[in-house]
Amino acid sequence: MDWGETRINVRYQETDQMGVVYHANYFVWFEVARTEMMKKNGFNYRELEERGVMLPVVDVSCKYHHPSKYDDHVIVRARIKEYKGIKINIEYEAIREQDGKLLATGETKHVWVNKELKPVRLEKIANDFHNALQDLITIEAKGRSYV
Amino acid sequence: MDWGETRINVRYQETDQMGVVYHANYFVWFEVARTEMMKKNGFNYRELEERGVMLPVVDVSCKYHHPSKYDDHVIVRARIKEYKGIKINIEYEAIREQDGKLLATGETKHVWVNKELKPVRLEKIANDFHNALQDLITIEAKGRSYV
Amino acid sequence: MDWGETRINVRYQETDQMGVVYHANYFVWFEVARTEMMKKNGFNYRELEERGVMLPVVDVSCKYHHPSKYDDHVIVRARIKEYKGIKINIEYEAIREQDGKLLATGETKHVWVNKELKPVRLEKIANDFHNALQDLITIEAKGRSYV
Amino acid sequence: MDWGETRINVRYQETDQMGVVYHANYFVWFEVARTEMMKKNGFNYRELEERGVMLPVVDVSCKYHHPSKYDDHVIVRARIKEYKGIKINIEYEAIREQDGKLLATGETKHVWVNKELKPVRLEKIANDFHNALQDLITIEAKGRSYV
Repeated sequence: MDWGETRINVRYQETDQMGVVYHANYFVWFEVARTEMMKKNGFNYRELEERGVMLPVVDVSCKYHHPSKYDDHVIVRARIKEYKGIKINIEYEAIREQDGKLLATGETKHVWVNKELKPVRLEKIANDFHNALQDLITIEAKGRSYV
Repeated sequence: MDWGETRINVRYQETDQMGVVYHANYFVWFEVARTEMMKKNGFNYRELEERGVMLPVVDVSCKYHHPSKYDDHVIVRARIKEYKGIKINIEYEAIREQDGKLLATGETKHVWVNKELKPVRLEKIANDFHNALQDLITIEAKGRSYV
Repeated sequence: MDWGETRINVRYQETDQMGVVYHANYFVWFEVARTEMMKKNGFNYRELEERGVMLPVVDVSCKYHHPSKYDDHVIVRARIKEYKGIKINIEYEAIREQDGKLLATGETKHVWVNKELKPVRLEKIANDFHNALQDLITIEAKGRSYV
Repeated sequence: MDWGETRINVRYQETDQMGVVYHANYFVWFEVARTEMMKKNGFNYRELEERGVMLPVVDVSCKYHHPSKYDDHVIVRARIKEYKGIKINIEYEAIREQDGKLLATGETKHVWVNKELKPVRLEKIANDFHNALQDLITIEAKGRSYV
C-alpha cells in the first residue's frame, strides 16, 4: 500500500502566539490523513463506526522538524506500518508543499474496539475490512520485495 | 438565580498568532461556565445526558470588548436569561481578574432534545430538573421585584 | 462580489460526544471561508498581516439549522456584507454538499488594527487593499441593481 | 523537584463522538501542567516569552491507558526529566481523581529558542532562569540520593 496523501491549508485557529502551528494540531492532521488514506484504500471509517467498530488511539509520537505557518499548504502522508488483527500502527509525514520541507514525522498505534470500548479482532466483527487490509498488506509486501 | 462563576486560566493552545485568545474559544469557556452554573444550581449536565437528554446550541452571539492574553485569569459568569419548557437562553460575561476589564459578553440559545436529537419538553423527560429550574426562576423573579 | 466558497470535510476532532460538530467549530470554518474568499478576490490576509495589518473579530453570531456529522462534506460560503474603511462585516452559510441542507448561517464583524491592536483606517495603512475592496463593492452594487 | 500538579475538569469540547476525550487534547493538558509546574518552581513562562525566550516542542509521545470522559476531574502531573542548557525534557501523568485510574503518560522535549526561533542556551539569554533550573535539579538529585 502506498502513502495516502491529504492536502491541508493551515488555519488561523491552528496557530498559537509563537506564530507557528500549535504542536498538538499535527495529530489532528494525522487523523485526517489516516481516514483519507483508509478511504482511498476502500475503508470508510465512518461506515465502520456505524457498524459498531471504532479505532481509538493507544500510543502516539511525533517529531517536529520545522515549524509550519498560517496559510502554508501541507501535504500529510499516512501509511500502515503494521497490522495484526487486533491492532494497527500507522506512520505519517507532513511536508510543506511550497518548498518540500519536512515539517514532522509521527506514528499512531490503535486497537479495534466495539461500542463498549472493548478490544476486538477486526476479522470477527468486520471480516470484509480485515480481508481487504490483509490483501493490501500482502500486495505491498510483494511490491517491496522487488525493490 | 445568581450568576454562576467559573475561573479560567488562559491556555497557550487558546492563543493564535495575533497573540490573543482565538475568538471561537470564548464559546468553549461559555460552555464551561454554563455547565458549572447548572451544577451549582443542582443540575448535573453529565447526568442529564446519561438520562438521554441533551442540550444542543441553536443560536449564539458574542461581542468582544477587549482581547485576552495567554495566562490571563478570566472569570466567566453565566446566568439563565429565559426558560420555557422546550428552550433555554443563557447569557455570559468574561472578565479579566487582574484588572476587572470586561473581555466579552455573549448569549447562547438551546433546545432540549432526546438521543435522536428531536426537541422535547424538559418536563416530559426530566420533570425533576424542570421543577428545579422553575423554582430557581421564580425565586429570582421575586428577588428582582424588590430591587 | 460573489460568495466565496470553501469545501470542508468534517474532521473527527471537530465532533463532540453528542455525535455532531461542536458548535464553536463553525467559527473556525467561517474563518477558513473568509480568508479563502478574500484570497479569491485578490486579498491575501497572510500578506496583510506581514504588512502589519490585522483583522480581529469584534462581534459574531451564528444560527444552527441542522447538525453536521463526521466526514460530511460542507460548503462554507462567505460574502462581504458591509465595508466602511475601519470595519468590515462578513456573512456566511454552511451547506451540506450531499443533500444541500442548510446547516448554519452566521455573521462576523471586524475592525482593521495595527500591530499594537489599535484600530486603523485600511486606506491609511494599505491603500491598495482598500481600493480593491471599494472596487469590488461598487461592481457588486451595480450588478445587483440589474437584478 | 517534585511533580507539579494541575487539576483539569474535562470540557465538553474536548470529547469526540467516541464519547471520550480526543487524544490530541492530552498534549494541551500537558502544556497546562508544564507551565503550572514551572510557575510553582518560580519560572513564569509568560514572562520568559516577554523577554524573548520561547520553548517550542520538538518531540512528543503519549500512551493512553484508560479513556477519560466529559466532566471527569483529572490530575495532570509534570516533572522535569532532563535539563541541559539548550534542551529540556518533561514527563507527565494524567490520573482521574475519582478513582485514581492512570489515564495517560507522556513526554515532551523542548529546545530554548529566541524570537527568530533560533536555538539558544538558556544561560546566555536568561541566566537567572538557568540558575534556578540548575538549583532545582541539584536539590532533587540530592533528595533522590537519600531515598
